[in-house]
Formats: sequence, C-alpha cells, structure tokens
Amino acid sequence: MTRAEIEPFHAIGISRLAHQLKGEGAQVIHMEFGQPSTGAPAPAIARAHQVLDSDGMGYWESPALKARIARHYQETYGVGIEAEQVVLTCGASPALVLALSSAFTPGDRIALARPGYVAYRNSLKALHLTPVEIACGPESRYQLTAQALAALEPAPAGVIIASPANPTGTIIPPEELKAIADVCRERGIRIVSDEIYHGLSYVGPAHSMLEFEPTALIVNSFSKYFSMVGWRLGWLVAPSDLVIRARAFVGNLFLTAPSLSQHAGLAAMDAREELEGHVAVYRANRQLLLDALPSLGLTAIAPPDGAFYIWADIGHLTDDSLAFCERLLRETGVATAPGLDFDPVDGRHFIRFSFAVSTQEVREALRRIQPWFAAQAQNSR
Amino acid sequence: MTRAEIEPFHAIGISRLAHQLKGEGAQVIHMEFGQPSTGAPAPAIARAHQVLDSDGMGYWESPALKARIARHYQETYGVGIEAEQVVLTCGASPALVLALSSAFTPGDRIALARPGYVAYRNSLKALHLTPVEIACGPESRYQLTAQALAALEPAPAGVIIASPANPTGTIIPPEELKAIADVCRERGIRIVSDEIYHGLSYVGPAHSMLEFEPTALIVNSFSKYFSMVGWRLGWLVAPSDLVIRARAFVGNLFLTAPSLSQHAGLAAMDAREELEGHVAVYRANRQLLLDALPSLGLTAIAPPDGAFYIWADIGHLTDDSLAFCERLLRETGVATAPGLDFDPVDGRHFIRFSFAVSTQEVREALRRIQPWFAAQAQNSR
Repeated sequence: MTRAEIEPFHAIGISRLAHQLKGEGAQVIHMEFGQPSTGAPAPAIARAHQVLDSDGMGYWESPALKARIARHYQETYGVGIEAEQVVLTCGASPALVLALSSAFTPGDRIALARPGYVAYRNSLKALHLTPVEIACGPESRYQLTAQALAALEPAPAGVIIASPANPTGTIIPPEELKAIADVCRERGIRIVSDEIYHGLSYVGPAHSMLEFEPTALIVNSFSKYFSMVGWRLGWLVAPSDLVIRARAFVGNLFLTAPSLSQHAGLAAMDAREELEGHVAVYRANRQLLLDALPSLGLTAIAPPDGAFYIWADIGHLTDDSLAFCERLLRETGVATAPGLDFDPVDGRHFIRFSFAVSTQEVREALRRIQPWFAAQAQNSR
Repeated sequence: MTRAEIEPFHAIGISRLAHQLKGEGAQVIHMEFGQPSTGAPAPAIARAHQVLDSDGMGYWESPALKARIARHYQETYGVGIEAEQVVLTCGASPALVLALSSAFTPGDRIALARPGYVAYRNSLKALHLTPVEIACGPESRYQLTAQALAALEPAPAGVIIASPANPTGTIIPPEELKAIADVCRERGIRIVSDEIYHGLSYVGPAHSMLEFEPTALIVNSFSKYFSMVGWRLGWLVAPSDLVIRARAFVGNLFLTAPSLSQHAGLAAMDAREELEGHVAVYRANRQLLLDALPSLGLTAIAPPDGAFYIWADIGHLTDDSLAFCERLLRETGVATAPGLDFDPVDGRHFIRFSFAVSTQEVREALRRIQPWFAAQAQNSR
C-alpha cells in the first residue's frame, strides 16, 4: 500500500481570491460553490432557538428524525425502509466515507463518472480504494450508463451513481436507473447512490436508486434542498446486510451528528412551502442562464435537469479553465468553478456556474460577463 | 487487505437498557458515558441565538476560532503555533481519523495503551492500520512509557498518547512526556496525542505533547472541558509538514465543522468562570467517590488524576464485567461502562464510572450501590 495522495479543490483557491478581492472593495458574485445562500427554513431556526434554551445536547441520535426520514422514502419514492437503516452523519461527506468504508475493502475498484464531484475520487483514494473513472460525454448526458457498466472488465466491486449530478445537473431517467441496477445485480457490483440534489429538479422528480435496488447505499443531506449547509447534517441509508457494520463504523469514526441540527432538520422537513420557494428561484435562475448562454457563445452545455449547476464547454476560448476562472473573477467579479476540479482530463475545457444565488445576482452576473465573453471570443479568433 | 471488522461499544448496550428501564419508570443515574450533563456555557448559547437570526451559515471555517485556539496553545502551554495549523472538525473522532489518515499508510503499526478508548483500536482497524496494544497495568499507572516504546521491536510507525486517559483518568507527568518524545524522535515514531480531557485535571495542569515534540499531531474538542458535546466541534493541530495534506483530507472526507458551533465555541473559550465551576463539581464528585470506594470493596483503582472517570478492578466480584454492569443497572438504576470496551483482554475484571454528573447524583448513586456491592462481596465469598 502506498500513501494516499489527493489534490486540493481548485474552487477553494478561486473562493479565496474572491474573498480577497471583496476585501479590496470588489462586488463579488459567488457562483463558485454549490451552496444555497438562503439559510435554514424559518421553522428550523425557531426550533433551534427553543432547543438552545431547553436541552443540554449530549451525544444523541434523534429517533424522530430517523423515523421521519424513513417516512420520506415511503412518501417520495414509495419505498419502505426501517428507521434503523438511517444513519445520521455530519453531512453527506462523512456519509459517503461511511458508505465506502462499510461496503468495500482496500484495493477494491469503484467505478464512477468523469466528470464528477471531486471528493468521490479523492475519498476513494484516501480510503485506498481504486477509482475507475469512466469518461462520460454529451452522448450519455455526462452520466454512467448500464451499457458502460456491463462493458467494464473486470467487473468493479462498486459504483458511485450521482443523479442529479455535480457538476452537470443531469438526471439519469428511471428506466436507465433500473437497467444500471440490473447490470449491477448480475455482475455483483455494489451501488452507492449520492442523492444529495434530490428535490432540486426541473424536469420531473428524481428517482431513488432504492426503487430499483434495495441493497444500494444511499447518501443524502440537509445541505442542498433543505438549505442547511453549515448545520452539517446528512444521512446514509444502509441496506439491511450492512446496517450493523455501518453503525459500528459511525460510532467509532464519527460518533453522532450535531444535536441542534437534528432538531432543526426535523422541523425543516415539514417546511415545504418555503423550500419550494427556493426551488422556484433556482428554476428562474436556470432559465435566465439558459436564455443568455448562447449570447455568451456557450452553446455546448450539459442538460441542467436538476441541482443548481451549468456545466459549460469553454474549449473554444481556453484550454486552461483555472486561469480562465481567475481572469473572469478578477475582471468581472463573478466567481465560478474551474472544470479541473471535476474532470482532471477534459476539465481544462469546462467551467461550472452555480445558480444557487438570488435572481438579482444572476442578472447582474450576466450583465457583467456578456461583454467580457464577447471580448474573449474576439481575442481567440 | 482484508475487510476491517470492528466491534460495537458495549456501553451503548448498557445505555439502551438504561433508557428502557427509565421508560418503565426506573430512576436511572447515567454514569456510563463520558459526557458532561451541564450543557454549553451561557455566552456560547447567547452567541448561538444571535447567529441563528443573522447568518445564513454556509460552508465556513472560522478564522477567529482558529486564531483563538492558536492563542490558547501560547497561553496554556507556552507553545507557538500558526492558526493555519488548526483544522476544525465535527468533534475529536473525525479529528483522530484525519490525524491517522494524514500521517500513516495502511499496514503501518501504531502503538497504543491497553486499556484505552475503544475508538482508537477500532478507528485504526477501520483505516487498515495495525494496532499494537501494549498492556499497561497499575505499575505504569495504566499508561504507555518511554521505556515500553523503546523496547518495542520493530519500532512502530506511530503511537497514540492519551493524557488524561480514558478510561483511567491518569495523567502522564511532563518528564515522562519528554522522555516519550525523545524515544519517538530517535526511533522515527510519529506521535498522535489525544488531549481531549485537558482542562479537567485534579493534580495540576496537564502538559501538551507540543511542548516536547513539534511534529506531533494533537487532537482536541469542545465536548469535555467546554461542555459542548452535541455541538460536534473538535480540532486537529497538524504539524507544519502535514498541514497541507490534512487540509486536503478534511476538504474531501468531511468538509467544514458546524458553523453555529464554531461561533458558539469561540464564545465558550472565554467563559472560564462557568467552566471552572463544572471542574469544581467534578472535583467534589471525584472526592466523594474516592472516599466511598473502599467501603464498596473497590480498593484497586487507577489514580484519577484528570478526566471524569474511575477505573476500578472488580476482579474479586466477577470475571464478566458486561453481565456485572447489566445487573448493577437493573438492580440499582446506576449505569456504568463495562471494562471490555476499553480492554478486550483484562477488561472483564474492570468497570468504569463516569462522574460527569451532578454531585447529588453521585451521592444518590453511592447510597444505592453501597448495599449492593456489600451483597455481591457476601455472595462471592
């Protein structure tokens, strides 16, 4: 075994620069990170105030929240799970670590799509698993397919599915999810499904992998749809054959999730009206961007079915997306994420916009970047 | 590589039973877990109320808290560290995972004391490191010594030091810490020092390993002295040669610590008067127990220099500490931790009392268990 070497997030460098420019007086628009700017829903905050004054908050795993999440699977996907299968964590990141640690053994090969969320690749490496990246382009909407998984030799021990995906926002349709589940069952490939962007979809609801494969491990969190990023609350649904193991791991590696966040998260799950209001804002932002992108010369984008991202090909303008993002930020105050974070091979030709900001900010960003992109196109001719 | 197999906490089983008995009407006294029952200090709660109403709480790492913790090392130990060396985590557990992942490679042998905190052994196994447990008895106050580390062949890649220790509460004196640092430097053994019980000492202040070895990794948290258990906030001090690596790991495996907890934790660090009040309670509880233990027939205990534990030999009464704890709980309502969690070999002869409860609860517990222990001694004759 060799020491795990993992790369830093380039988007963090962009964000640092953004904060520095802000300190120097620039009006920065933060489209570099995938986080809602809206804060927790009002009933969650109200509940947190109550609990702060009434509860000592020891190590605690909320039975009511686990039951409520189990009910959510029944109501949203028509899937029955036990509350005990829900393992609460400090966000989706440790839930993924828990999933990978519980299901796999060092050296195991795990398939995943490229482009994809950088922490998949890096967490796999940190846990001494072997990422098997499958290049996914526009022909498969940048997503893994059953066909690609059937063709992979030898069969990997596992696969990470993400739908809606980061950085593309593309959703895998239910018939393809089913086909993936079938191939994985046949080939003995364990599925880890990251469903963190569920609730944020603009082309009909996303389906859970649990509808097709009860042995899948499901990762989710309160950081996206529920708009509770800094509360650090996520969960893993462990299949029945792994739940005891996952609980032993969480008790040793992490202990419990924040108590206040568990109380607040339970309240947030019934704040649908406020949360759907955020989705309406994202939908409007997405439409503004889709309407404007052609005028920026950005015509090759992934279909943004869900999440709050646009993944745009800028290959006609640069082959160094990091330098491009830095220049865009310095010259317009609009921070974006360089594609390199999500695709170490082709990412130098891509850029990711996050539209989890206000509609006013999207308008202002477009006002600034339209002339800038026009000038770039001029220069690159 | 084989799959990591780790055991569950037996104390969790005891705690489940305790809650069940409570549900059936029993008056349970919780001395099974190492958690303060006091809640966060008032300024921390006040700050949390403020932040709840004013901050959207995204991914965030508080620069002020990192700087305040760095200042704490200067003020408390006379050690200068950079704020950037402080990596904030969701409690000490992920800080330990981060320390072990950053410093070691699968297969590395890591020395640690037996008895010790169960998650050390289990986290090592989960990360595919090899625990090298060194049996530590009363002659070394249940602690690792420089001599034991010098004698270990071959030299391990690392060692976990815990002072004050769990389950014993014993503190390693500064001259021995220095000797350990010297041996480790000479033999190329990387030190991970768990200082989570610092601030809770009854025989003079505990010393940080950083006073003797700047390349040590230091784990600490707000869960013990600062009484903020369910807030899930801890930190790692990474040495300068590992800080970039530790930051890459935390960004991929965990992301940030809870934002509200970071704000509140900063306020807690200046709430010394309230926190020292808790220490005064623990000191009184400890004295009550020390005075009463001989009358229980418990004469072989570890010197409880710090933390809030009594580690007592019950070998004259049982060789099954788990069954013993269950019976003690069922018959007196006093929940304790079976030694097996901390020592898989000799732990069947030990029991751990946590005195992080109110003084009234300690008095009531003693009132109940004194006749019970007398009866046990009678029966075992």
